[in-house]
This record gives sequence, C-alpha cells and structure tokens, in this order.
Amino acid sequence: MITLSSDFGSPYPAAMKGVICRATDARIEDIAHDFPRQDVRAAAFWLTQTLPYFPPAVHCVVVDPGVGTDRDALVVRAGEHALVGPDNGVLLPVARELAANETDTADAFEVFTWAYDDPASTTFHGRDVFAPAAAAVHDTGVDNLEARTETTPTDDYVDLRFPAASVDGDDATGEVLVVDDFGNAVTNIPGEVLADRFGGTIEVDGRDAPVCRAYAAVDRGQRLVTVGSHGNVELAVNRGRGDEAFGVSAGDTVALSL
Amino acid sequence: MITLSSDFGSPYPAAMKGVICRATDARIEDIAHDFPRQDVRAAAFWLTQTLPYFPPAVHCVVVDPGVGTDRDALVVRAGEHALVGPDNGVLLPVARELAANETDTADAFEVFTWAYDDPASTTFHGRDVFAPAAAAVHDTGVDNLEARTETTPTDDYVDLRFPAASVDGDDATGEVLVVDDFGNAVTNIPGEVLADRFGGTIEVDGRDAPVCRAYAAVDRGQRLVTVGSHGNVELAVNRGRGDEAFGVSAGDTVALSL
Amino acid sequence: MITLSSDFGSPYPAAMKGVICRATDARIEDIAHDFPRQDVRAAAFWLTQTLPYFPPAVHCVVVDPGVGTDRDALVVRAGEHALVGPDNGVLLPVARELAANETDTADAFEVFTWAYDDPASTTFHGRDVFAPAAAAVHDTGVDNLEARTETTPTDDYVDLRFPAASVDGDDATGEVLVVDDFGNAVTNIPGEVLADRFGGTIEVDGRDAPVCRAYAAVDRGQRLVTVGSHGNVELAVNRGRGDEAFGVSAGDTVALSL
Repeated sequence: MITLSSDFGSPYPAAMKGVICRATDARIEDIAHDFPRQDVRAAAFWLTQTLPYFPPAVHCVVVDPGVGTDRDALVVRAGEHALVGPDNGVLLPVARELAANETDTADAFEVFTWAYDDPASTTFHGRDVFAPAAAAVHDTGVDNLEARTETTPTDDYVDLRFPAASVDGDDATGEVLVVDDFGNAVTNIPGEVLADRFGGTIEVDGRDAPVCRAYAAVDRGQRLVTVGSHGNVELAVNRGRGDEAFGVSAGDTVALSL
Repeated sequence: MITLSSDFGSPYPAAMKGVICRATDARIEDIAHDFPRQDVRAAAFWLTQTLPYFPPAVHCVVVDPGVGTDRDALVVRAGEHALVGPDNGVLLPVARELAANETDTADAFEVFTWAYDDPASTTFHGRDVFAPAAAAVHDTGVDNLEARTETTPTDDYVDLRFPAASVDGDDATGEVLVVDDFGNAVTNIPGEVLADRFGGTIEVDGRDAPVCRAYAAVDRGQRLVTVGSHGNVELAVNRGRGDEAFGVSAGDTVALSL
Repeated sequence: MITLSSDFGSPYPAAMKGVICRATDARIEDIAHDFPRQDVRAAAFWLTQTLPYFPPAVHCVVVDPGVGTDRDALVVRAGEHALVGPDNGVLLPVARELAANETDTADAFEVFTWAYDDPASTTFHGRDVFAPAAAAVHDTGVDNLEARTETTPTDDYVDLRFPAASVDGDDATGEVLVVDDFGNAVTNIPGEVLADRFGGTIEVDGRDAPVCRAYAAVDRGQRLVTVGSHGNVELAVNRGRGDEAFGVSAGDTVALSL
C-alpha cells in the first residue's frame, strides 16, 4: 500500500497517482491533500495522527516549499513502514511515532537520501521525484532499501520536534499546534493535566471554561476544554469553532490555570 | 466493500481508513467527508442519494454531534447492506430506501445496538468505535450480525423522517432539504407536481419561474425550476446558484403555485 | 481502471462510483471533482496535466453545462485509453495528447457517439449516462468499441483547442489558461522562451520580475516567473498567490518582454 499526503489541493495529486499506477499495482490511499499550505509543522503533526493507524505501507509526503532548490529527497525506514519526502523535517515526528510503536524505541528509524536525476520539472517533484521513489520503494520492500542504488544512509537531515508545553503545579503553558476543520484548537499540552478536572472548570488565558469529555456536554455554542483524539488539550465549542471562541490561531500561546 | 461518510473534513477520515486497512482487506470507497457539519438531516438526505447506487456493502457513517455522550452505536441490516453509525437518526432514511429497493418493503430493516468498550478517545468514535465496527461487520457478513457478541436487536432507536410536502390542487408547499454544491435548492416537493408543466411557468414564493428539464434551457444566470436527480422539485439557476436567486436556505419554506 | 473527473464537488460523484461498482470490479481513481464549475476549457487543460500520467484506462469526464439538452455523449479512443464524456470539447485536448504519446500522431484518435435512452434524470447524466457508459467501455475493452451497439463513429463533434501564444523576438503575448490551487497563474506561453533567462529578469505586463527555476529562489512573498510542471510560463509568488501579485485571472492577457 502507498499513501499520499500533500498540500497540493487539486488536481496535482492525480498526476502522482497516475505515475504510481504506471509503476506498480500497489493500492493507493489518500491521507489528505489539503494540509495547510507550505506549513511543514502542521503537516508533520497531522501525519502523526493518521499514518500510525495504517498497516505497514510506503507513505509519500509532499509538503515542500523548497521544491527545485538543492534540498535532498529522503526515504525513512521506521518499523515496517517507509516514508518518502523532502528533507525539511516533515517526516521526522511520524518516523519517531512509527518506530516507537513497532520497536518501543523512538530512535529506531533510519534515514536515507534518495538520489534523483534532474527531473522533468523544477516545480513538481511530487510527480517527478517522490511518486516514482515511493513506487520504487514499495516494490523493493522496506527491508531492502540498501539494495537500491539511489539510497545512501545519512544522519545529516533536517529534524523537527514539536515544542514542549511547560507544566508547573497548577499552571500549564503551551501553544496551539493546529486548528482542525471543526475549528478545534489542538494544543501541545498533554491531556493528563486535565485528568481529575472533568466536570469542573479551569481558566484558559484568564477566562473560565468547563472541562468535559464530550463536546455535547455543554450547550450548543458554548466553550469547553477537552482532551482530543490526539491526547492533547483541545479548546472547542459545542457545534461551533473553538479557535474563534478562544481567540487563538496555530502558533499562539495558551495558558491554563488548573 | 466498506464506504465512508462523515462531516469530518480532512484529515481525520484517514485515521479511520488506516484502522479499517489494519483490520480487513476490504475495498474502501469514500462517499463524502464534507456533509454539512453536525447536520444529521442533511447527511441522512445525501445518504439516500448515494448509498442505494452501490452494490451490497458496509456503510460507515459518522455525523455524530453526540460523540462521547451515552448515545448508542447502531448497526442496521437493510437488504444485503449494513449501515454502521451513531443512534441519532442519520441511518434511518437510507435504511428504508435500501430495504425497499431489495425487499419492496421499507420496514424490512433490522436495527442492532453495537456494544463498545470505553474507546481511546471521547471525541473521535469514528476512529475508535465505528471504523472497527464496520471492519468487523464486513468480515462477519451482513447475514451473520446475530453471531457477533456486540450486537443486540433493538426497536428503541432515534428515527428520522424527512418532512412531507403538502400538495393541494395547484398549491404545493414544502421546504428546502439541502442546498447542493452548485447552489441548487433541493426541496421535499415531489417532482410529479411538475409533470405537465414543462415548458410553462409557475410561481415560486409569488414570483414567476420557468419549468425546464435542463439547466441550459434558460439563459445563463436565469432562474428555473426543475426536477433534480433525486426526483424532487429543485430551484436552480443556469450556471449560477439557485439558493441565492430564490433567496432560500436549507430549512426554508417554499410555496409553489402551479 | 476507471478514472473520474468532474466539477460536481460533493457528494454526487459517490453516486457515479456506486453505479460503476455495481457494473464492474474495475479499480476507480479520482482525478478531481472540483474543476472550475462549468468551465470546459479549464477542465480540458487539467485533463492534459493528469490523464497522460496514467496507464491505459477509461477516463470518465463530466463537466457538462449542457446536461439534459440534446448534446451528444461521446467515447473517444486515444491510444490504449478511452475517454467518456459530453460533446462539448472537454475531451479533445487530452485525446490529442494521449494519441501523440502513444502513436506519435496527435490526430490518431477516434471519436464515437454513445447512444443512450432517456435516463432517469435530466440533470445528472454523470450518474445515469456517463458512469454506465464508462463501465461498459471498460468491460468491452478499448479495442472493441465498434462491437458495442451504442457506438457510432463520427467526425462531427465539438472541438476545443487552447489559444496559441504569439512570440515575436523578445516579445511574447499569451493568456492565463488557469490559476491553480496555489494561486500560480498558468499561461499558454511555451516555457522555451525563458530558456536562457534563468537568473535574470524579464518584464511582465511592464513590471520587472525575476526568472527562477524554484519558487524558493526568491524571498517569501516575492514575485517570480518560472516554467511550471506543464512546460508553460507560470506567474508565481514564493509561498503566496501569483494571481493576486500579478493581478491576473484565467482568460487575462499576459505580455512578456524578454
């Protein structure tokens, strides 16, 4: 199986699918093609929320503001999964997750550069570099990456780690990592800080908000704080947009008084 | 085959696909993931316009404003199809359609509750409850639902029926069920009321509009009334938005003078 | 394999998929369903950028402002590919590309009308005419189109050719064919005019702009001119929208002084 992720919108991903279908019979599943444009960190976050649910696969990821520059193409082996994409950090957080899930060691992933000739275009490496690489990796097999002449092991790559929240007694400070399509503001504050607060109230940026397990635990249009499906603290509104109600966007700081 | 429908936007449906792909080799086809958010009635309508065209399949539907509350998870057997989703009515109209298509009896569907343990999250039962249930139902087979320990037959579920239009001589009154992506306002008024009006004119909310079989029967930008692919009266504009030209939104009343 | 392209948005394409899945086990891949609405030329352009990358397939295309009128349904054989769609020109540019790729002769395609009975709806031939036709063509095989009673060879069809740019010494004048999801303005001016200008500057509509191979060759938010993945001159902004920065929309004239 090959999965596809990008910030391409439409219809460019279809050209990638065509290239893959010409090269292999592998099943293709789309993760998303509407990741926030050229936002490497947001894409890296969403990959950690989606790819680990898949069985072993080759995951082709193209969020690549440096396309056409001399940035490398990478292949990462993480457990039985392979990740293919640009060397800008987007692959690293999910590589750690996949490695930790399969080997109990988040460092148990291996990074290779993938050598490519000058492609047909300097603006669409998704079609001309990464899709062919994903098909080749799929048919070679994740255990045989070393057998490909294109691969060279490397430890010189761009890394990316999500910022850590700080928790100090009853104060937790973090930031909004992404806002999802519902308007839920996903923070980097671990959900454990709310463990014994459900049914009660905390302060978010100085204003009270109830702590609930379900959006529908408050009236329609009301604010709440919950633990999202990612395990982090999430600022939400029942049937509304948490980002607007809490006045936050991706990257903004959030302070909780528990 | 398993189909997926939700109001999740992107990329949450990918996590559901991963869960299903881990559990079964079943083919997955997306119906839509942009149903109007938390709008159970609109989703129920669109399911009646899409699922009956499929061969027998397991249809996983997650439009679920009550996620994390104590609402039940349901599995419905309708003909050779199975529907999996929350107990909020969203499955019922299409269950009647599927049952009627396959058995000539709209009541020939069976509803089961699907017992589930506390899932990993209280906010994403699509990933943690409904996707695993759909995979399990697929591999068990729609004829063997009773064999699953999770299933209990029930007739205590939330039902949903679309409001009926009233037709009285030359007057028909109904409401807009949904507005589609083109801007066509789909009403609940049966298309038969227009049967001998094509080529003529009727009044919609007191203003004349031509009755046409094709959008292009009027000039670009002009209003028309037609019978849509759903068989109901539809308010449209050739190459434009009917909802804006007729000044209506989902839920609004529409009065026709034939 | 059957590919699907339309301007339907969501969820109408799902009904087409259901119809196809009932008729054949063929793999289905989506090209795009958000082509600019009722814009035959834009759809025709995007098809040339996507379908040629696929292995031989049946491509079902529904951008069809004339649905329900007496316009014909067509099937086109181009190399080992078949195209199915309305007779409004949308299939012709990609038919030439596919024919040229496989036979070295852009005229080596064959057009057939596809006879159909009055379908269930006058507004959704994607579901009622083109999806069934695509499934039938797939199972008959592109080499056996003549064996279907529905097909009649024709040379009386609506053609469509993209306007040609004019290049005269150091002046090139063309137009914007489409604006992509990134905001890149794709012109019809062949990329060869920029061949020895990379690293330098040209004038676009009287204002200087650098000529670059990569978007990231200029600072964030800065304008540039490049050759896009389609091989044509493209007006872009690094991590921004070229259409806004250059003040152009699809159909606008663009003048380059090289």
